[in-house]
Amino acid sequence: MTSVNSRVVDPVRVLVLGSGQMGCGIARLVLDKPGLELAGLFAKRSERAGMNVGRAIGLERDLDLGIHTDLTTAIDEAEPHVAVQATCSRLSAASVEIAALLRRSIHVVSIAEEMAYPAHRSPALADELHALATAHGVGVVGTGINPGFVLDLLVIALSGVCSEIRSIAAERVNDLCPYGPTVLASQGVGLDREAFVRGLDDGSVVGHYGFPESIHMIADTLGWDIEHIDEQRTPIITTVRRVTPWLTVEPGMVAGCLHQAVAYRRGEPVIKLLHPQQIHPKLDGVDTGDRIEISGTPDVRLAGSPEIPGGQATCALAVNMIPRLLNAAPGLHTAAGLPVPAALLGDARQQIRQRLALHRHD
Amino acid sequence: MTSVNSRVVDPVRVLVLGSGQMGCGIARLVLDKPGLELAGLFAKRSERAGMNVGRAIGLERDLDLGIHTDLTTAIDEAEPHVAVQATCSRLSAASVEIAALLRRSIHVVSIAEEMAYPAHRSPALADELHALATAHGVGVVGTGINPGFVLDLLVIALSGVCSEIRSIAAERVNDLCPYGPTVLASQGVGLDREAFVRGLDDGSVVGHYGFPESIHMIADTLGWDIEHIDEQRTPIITTVRRVTPWLTVEPGMVAGCLHQAVAYRRGEPVIKLLHPQQIHPKLDGVDTGDRIEISGTPDVRLAGSPEIPGGQATCALAVNMIPRLLNAAPGLHTAAGLPVPAALLGDARQQIRQRLALHRHD
Repeated sequence: MTSVNSRVVDPVRVLVLGSGQMGCGIARLVLDKPGLELAGLFAKRSERAGMNVGRAIGLERDLDLGIHTDLTTAIDEAEPHVAVQATCSRLSAASVEIAALLRRSIHVVSIAEEMAYPAHRSPALADELHALATAHGVGVVGTGINPGFVLDLLVIALSGVCSEIRSIAAERVNDLCPYGPTVLASQGVGLDREAFVRGLDDGSVVGHYGFPESIHMIADTLGWDIEHIDEQRTPIITTVRRVTPWLTVEPGMVAGCLHQAVAYRRGEPVIKLLHPQQIHPKLDGVDTGDRIEISGTPDVRLAGSPEIPGGQATCALAVNMIPRLLNAAPGLHTAAGLPVPAALLGDARQQIRQRLALHRHD
Repeated sequence: MTSVNSRVVDPVRVLVLGSGQMGCGIARLVLDKPGLELAGLFAKRSERAGMNVGRAIGLERDLDLGIHTDLTTAIDEAEPHVAVQATCSRLSAASVEIAALLRRSIHVVSIAEEMAYPAHRSPALADELHALATAHGVGVVGTGINPGFVLDLLVIALSGVCSEIRSIAAERVNDLCPYGPTVLASQGVGLDREAFVRGLDDGSVVGHYGFPESIHMIADTLGWDIEHIDEQRTPIITTVRRVTPWLTVEPGMVAGCLHQAVAYRRGEPVIKLLHPQQIHPKLDGVDTGDRIEISGTPDVRLAGSPEIPGGQATCALAVNMIPRLLNAAPGLHTAAGLPVPAALLGDARQQIRQRLALHRHD
């Protein structure tokens, strides 16, 4: 059973792309994990160039690594087996970096939201990444808490106990307080109702990235054809004062965005995903949490409160996915097509069955 | 992404082993699923020989299939691609049938409890099954609601959002009312306290099968070494009268078995699994349900009530596992080493990537 023909002896060298909250969190985890080695950090922001990685990721010590803002140089210096990408949300941006990595025979775990199920946004780009990964003998997969876990992979896992399913409802109610001004602005926090609507029109208020990805991951895995998806974004108007380090929201103003998506099959709503994101939901009597309800044979209901913390979970998923990806066949994968990422608590090399086949080891 | 090189055109022929509640339930599901074909039913009980499969599995019509009580004949008649085994709980019994199937290049999904993680009971037998499966180009895997899902695979799936874990607690509180006299006797239902203790001694009261399997599946997947497992079985004494079609339990008598297992690592209890099984728990104020709590970074709590119905779920898992197994590399697998089984709602052939490589198709 998963018998080991040849153990990996050297640590798995990991290049982290991204020097924001996620990239730094992932880099710290990589440093902590036996069997993984932080091989480098790539930052898009030019002001990061040359900074010491240790200080940049919040350690109180220097590491023998500098930040690179040129990807080719970062790869040359790091000679990584695998890269974890935390630089962007969109497939169009993510795929450029990913293609460059794949061409160098580097496996890629991406937390870009649209990489959770890239065949939805662009079947052509997904095919291209698959072909490139296959040709270079490496794998690529998207992960993250949402899309990637709570509203799709966990739904799929629970569906396994069902012989029939009529409909699926899942919701994730979270608190935006841990996030910075960019995320808050994307949910319209602090706006008035009219500015929120204008923000939806001009694209500055976006709500959640990833409902179509989650829905298609679920539907394709279960074997459902989806006709169309209705998405709706409405402002969450607070009745109480809510304060964060970044801004204060007075009663009557927008505390966040209630984003929902309903997917239709044969004219019936079969998947309903709800994701209200706001600051301090408890101040207005709203409990945070994750909830999945499957109506079928049998019915399945599972819920947890508070919600699984998104930032911590996304960093963990990205790192925990590394052995799963390295054990998989070359190509583009989705989280639903690999064994579930499990907490990596032992030596990562013990979880990797195949010798890393890399150009520099040839 | 999981691009399909060659679609499977013929239905996947499924032989079901077992004519009890589980075997019949699985056979009915196979009949219902597009892309799967019920190719035969094997029964161990000789009085089933020659019975029509349709009537035996509870249909109100005959099928063009007779029950066979000789496995070789059943295989010869069915010419199956895959067999689903629902004949026994123990590895020693299961492995004899499984070996016979593997030698005929037939994939095997087993719901035998000890097949959920056979390397625990017998590393030698697990190695043998792995070698046999590999040599014959087919796969074998164990599944079921417990062991196989609630207290192990779902725990592992949730662990994926964690970077560190201190301890794991999971419990499944169920109602034995849907089960027959054999299951009730195995939990000591209807005995007095002294007879329950004697039953533990003489092996007639067994509690739950599968805690060591669940614990080792979790620990091995996460990378924890377990030093020892303490198992404890105590009688659940009812304070109220509880009635089932099979027996009546008066106050002061045993309504079920509270079985728990605690696994130790470095002297610390790290995995605690609890499974009280009884008839009519609600009559004594006990709610049924499934609950998982991970203490770590971050903490994760998920729970659902009532519990996922065990019988329905095990039948569904067995059938839903078929495409996952047929897509996997040859060999012995565990549920944690394959993509999670998802509800099979479309044509099973759409979910199967590789051409079925069987002797009869050569």
